[in-house]
Amino acid sequence: MPVLTTRLTETLQIARPVVSAPMAFAAGGALAAAVTRAGGLGLIGGGYGDAEWLAAQFAAAAGERVGVGFITWSLARTPSLLEGVLGHRPAAVMLSFGDPRPFAPAIRAAGARLICQCQTLRHVQDAVEAGADIVVAQGSEAGGHGASRGTLTLVPEVADHLARHAPDVLLLAAGGIADGRGLAAALMLGADGVLMGTRFWAAREALVPAGHQQAILQTGGDGTLRTRVPDVVRQLPWPEPFTARVRRNAFTERWHGREEELARVAATEAVPYRAAGEAGDADNTGVWFGEAAGLIHAIAPAAAIVREVCEDAEARITAAAAGRVRRP
Amino acid sequence: MPVLTTRLTETLQIARPVVSAPMAFAAGGALAAAVTRAGGLGLIGGGYGDAEWLAAQFAAAAGERVGVGFITWSLARTPSLLEGVLGHRPAAVMLSFGDPRPFAPAIRAAGARLICQCQTLRHVQDAVEAGADIVVAQGSEAGGHGASRGTLTLVPEVADHLARHAPDVLLLAAGGIADGRGLAAALMLGADGVLMGTRFWAAREALVPAGHQQAILQTGGDGTLRTRVPDVVRQLPWPEPFTARVRRNAFTERWHGREEELARVAATEAVPYRAAGEAGDADNTGVWFGEAAGLIHAIAPAAAIVREVCEDAEARITAAAAGRVRRP
Repeated sequence: MPVLTTRLTETLQIARPVVSAPMAFAAGGALAAAVTRAGGLGLIGGGYGDAEWLAAQFAAAAGERVGVGFITWSLARTPSLLEGVLGHRPAAVMLSFGDPRPFAPAIRAAGARLICQCQTLRHVQDAVEAGADIVVAQGSEAGGHGASRGTLTLVPEVADHLARHAPDVLLLAAGGIADGRGLAAALMLGADGVLMGTRFWAAREALVPAGHQQAILQTGGDGTLRTRVPDVVRQLPWPEPFTARVRRNAFTERWHGREEELARVAATEAVPYRAAGEAGDADNTGVWFGEAAGLIHAIAPAAAIVREVCEDAEARITAAAAGRVRRP
Repeated sequence: MPVLTTRLTETLQIARPVVSAPMAFAAGGALAAAVTRAGGLGLIGGGYGDAEWLAAQFAAAAGERVGVGFITWSLARTPSLLEGVLGHRPAAVMLSFGDPRPFAPAIRAAGARLICQCQTLRHVQDAVEAGADIVVAQGSEAGGHGASRGTLTLVPEVADHLARHAPDVLLLAAGGIADGRGLAAALMLGADGVLMGTRFWAAREALVPAGHQQAILQTGGDGTLRTRVPDVVRQLPWPEPFTARVRRNAFTERWHGREEELARVAATEAVPYRAAGEAGDADNTGVWFGEAAGLIHAIAPAAAIVREVCEDAEARITAAAAGRVRRP
């Protein structure tokens, strides 16, 4: 597959330039291992950090070469979590949403690749200063937490910045990539590969309630929004500029734009919010997918997703070079 | 240039799949004619509609084959403008931000192609119902007016919709496309070509104050925002869901988030706002460019822009197919 041989596949010694996002709660060891077995690199979603859950997920990965990701500002409140995770010998540690610099030395000393997810050029500067091996340029299309830049402009601008200031740092595109078209586009924009979240959230191995997965199949790309309400109701102190992209539903319709009022009743409202999450109710809780929902029409095994995305990207690039731009 | 031969170039009988956006005030006849001469299709920015200005701009196009675009909700207030413009025999009429259906019959009867700019799938349904020849899928990255979807997910989702429901309707990608990387990515996403605004706003032929053009060269992609404040101060009744992407500057810092207060003092605040616009002051007025600012490093002639974008896109696609993904 020479078309998809990139600096990422060569550096990580993987067959396909696809990394699965470390989605909190959803990306467990089975999903990460399946992505790795399919030729990509799977990341376990360390999220806010729960040592017991993490140990169980590394066990579920059953010795496959996987990595792990953390919400950096949360990790900073329990830094001891990192040491425990490094004991599982992750192939890579991804840090998102916060200053990666305090954690970088330990990660690199453990022999793991440091991946830093960035939403602005300033974040990229911090990542380079931290010694990141890989930068993820994440656009606003992404499900879950992120910021406001579009993937289509952020990726080439970050590529230019890295070419000038840190040419050995690799670049992944993230946000809105769910099929071969997205992967092919990302490579054209200057990325070495892609990080996909929403597409793998809708994988059979994802730790996502069936009701939530059914909802993505019925939701188009216009059916999500960026909002703070899932964080307000959970009383999670997410810093600026991060918001969450979730499905538009009864919960977001009720509270988006009324964040101050929700904050006052959060303890009460969190009860039905969490119950709906556990019940797989897709209307009364945060349902964590991105704009790529409109491109996803089946819950599929992760291996099939990796294979189809890559085969389609390769076919599109080859066809375009031959003067045969395909229509979907 | 077989790589860039698409259904758009074949249908419009143009050499290159590049259309310049009909930016209100900025896209005059000289810019449109230069884009057409370079092998694309140039569109005059009819904007809110001013018959005298439009006549002057068609005269400036000096007989080149150009089109024109309108802000649809504004055109609906002075529908007679359309008849006058059709007398100039435009190659295409583009309608953005409003229901195109009332105007479609006259445009098609005049022999002009109907281009409908869309920000949601619902807009695409309306465009197809109107009989659009070309749909523009415009992402939030775009400068000026637009909505919230990212280009990277909107384009393939619209491509899928058209393939299923209106396979003869062509598709342009817009929002954040300013170089060969963006054009190549757009083709991978399923577009037949691109509509570029911000890149041509920074063309030598654009009707943009020198001070504003200098500002784009000093602004990165993080230096813009979507906001209603330029419309509030001008007392323009822009409907939902449209907002304006402009440069972050002293004006937006002062008023964004204080829209109700600005509305109360709009008549007063409009005076320095307009004066700053005329003086080329880039700090105290709306400065109309998009996230692609971070990819623009020179004010260049439109012909050079068209040529460089296309040559670079072709080179990237060819290199990728040969297994040589280039870094910028």
